[in-house]
Amino acid sequence: MRTTTAWVSGVAMGLVLVCGARWAQAAVPAATAPTPSEIVETAGPAAWRDVAPEDLVVMKLADGATVVYQLAPDFAPVHVANIRQLVRSGFFNGAVILRVQDGYVVQWGRPDEDKTVAQGITAHPAAEYEMPVTDLAAKGVVFKPLPYRDTYAKATGYAMSWPVASDGKDAWLVHCYGMIGVARDVAPDTGDATQLYTVIGQAPRHLDRNLAVVGRVLSGMDRLAARPRGTETLGFYKDGPERTQIVTASIGSDLVPGDQPHWQVLDSDTPTFDAWVSAKANRSGAFFVRPAGATDVCNVMPPVREKP
Amino acid sequence: MRTTTAWVSGVAMGLVLVCGARWAQAAVPAATAPTPSEIVETAGPAAWRDVAPEDLVVMKLADGATVVYQLAPDFAPVHVANIRQLVRSGFFNGAVILRVQDGYVVQWGRPDEDKTVAQGITAHPAAEYEMPVTDLAAKGVVFKPLPYRDTYAKATGYAMSWPVASDGKDAWLVHCYGMIGVARDVAPDTGDATQLYTVIGQAPRHLDRNLAVVGRVLSGMDRLAARPRGTETLGFYKDGPERTQIVTASIGSDLVPGDQPHWQVLDSDTPTFDAWVSAKANRSGAFFVRPAGATDVCNVMPPVREKP
Repeated sequence: MRTTTAWVSGVAMGLVLVCGARWAQAAVPAATAPTPSEIVETAGPAAWRDVAPEDLVVMKLADGATVVYQLAPDFAPVHVANIRQLVRSGFFNGAVILRVQDGYVVQWGRPDEDKTVAQGITAHPAAEYEMPVTDLAAKGVVFKPLPYRDTYAKATGYAMSWPVASDGKDAWLVHCYGMIGVARDVAPDTGDATQLYTVIGQAPRHLDRNLAVVGRVLSGMDRLAARPRGTETLGFYKDGPERTQIVTASIGSDLVPGDQPHWQVLDSDTPTFDAWVSAKANRSGAFFVRPAGATDVCNVMPPVREKP
Repeated sequence: MRTTTAWVSGVAMGLVLVCGARWAQAAVPAATAPTPSEIVETAGPAAWRDVAPEDLVVMKLADGATVVYQLAPDFAPVHVANIRQLVRSGFFNGAVILRVQDGYVVQWGRPDEDKTVAQGITAHPAAEYEMPVTDLAAKGVVFKPLPYRDTYAKATGYAMSWPVASDGKDAWLVHCYGMIGVARDVAPDTGDATQLYTVIGQAPRHLDRNLAVVGRVLSGMDRLAARPRGTETLGFYKDGPERTQIVTASIGSDLVPGDQPHWQVLDSDTPTFDAWVSAKANRSGAFFVRPAGATDVCNVMPPVREKP
């Protein structure tokens, strides 16, 4: 039950208005309409998209936290290849949480003076900040635009369960809560993936198309976002005990079978996802006196779960 | 140097388009244009709005954190009166942090079974979720709409340095990061201010006009947002040691002069604020390869500082 709205046709037809008609049919919630949680809880197996274990990174921190994040090779293939290489070469084992800036980002990796162990990567990747819509369509990446206007982009929506914005010509991953980007210096080709960050506040949409977005934290955001804020400028930790070590980072498929992570994301190409978004935009039930009638892309990040 | 754009005229004239012309003149940043930080650092005294000490609550937690928050009596007068009364009667002394739900809210007060000490308040306040634009204009509350479209409302912007949305007829405070609302049960008149929450993730705009928004945390968000997430449903803490006590809560003007808080917020009615918003929407400098050209209301929450 996948939709057939492709990038090219959707964008060419003026996707916001075209798709608005389809979504709008659920705009007036019945008092007894299912809540977003009920829709997720009763979603059948076909509504869930398996995440390939080779697209998962399992990061264990010295404070006992485990973070699992998903890579987005369709959107930033060179940066993702760097991350896989860095993980497999052990670069992140013994790296640290470098920075927590309140309402903004958590950043990890090795500090600038300690990157010499990075081997086998593309040292100066091109700026994979956006992808031509046609290239994504050629890979079969289907865009499901939301029927709601966005402050920053012509259209926002979901593609393969990733939050995406588009101007019709290009498309790019959006800096929503829990999304992961590649930190860099001033020059765009300095983002080699030796330092990564995830968003812990209001979506910093001004970073969209200025940094390579490469993935999403599926599990452990509660631990990353709850870390003490750094005491230096921009929330950097002081060198020393303020920095928590990353004990190990592993690609999911490299782990022994019993340890491999198996995660699922609600599939944005399913009617279940449509119903969930509509329910989020038009809250039913006695509590809500005035449903919003809309939702921004970062307020409908697809639910995730461990595969049952 | 205050603008004269009032609620009524601005809204009646179609405020987004009208005001867009004024703001848009700064849309193309020069490489040498000042950054948002530079604008704030060089802002003169006239660009800062003093917060009256009687609108400040100082909350000291048992873990050593101090939280200072500002009340918004123009927008929710009965709820704010309840908060002042609860603070002054000692209701919050010995209350607790009840809940931290990742990416959503921190909630504090007294648990449902422990509210009998609340005295002298309006037990069932009317739903102060929005205010007629004409009522705000009569109080001299000036709306400065942003020239950027919003997903949820006809217009968003700032009034007295508060983030505001409007449909032309009514206006309401927006659930941005750090904004404070009054928790309630299902019935709208059950929000008596014995439990308050603040936003710690992507702005939950679906709550706008469904709960009374009463203020903003000016200091201490870094401590509230970094708290361990609660282990019960919806991030509630278990009764017992998971709950951190509020040692004292005080109205700023009730403290002895040497202890009174003196805070300032960048004044949304000044050209400095305009320039800061434009600089946030159109980032200059070598780092940004593609300025966003827009900003949502929750990404331009006015900077705050202790009065120098």
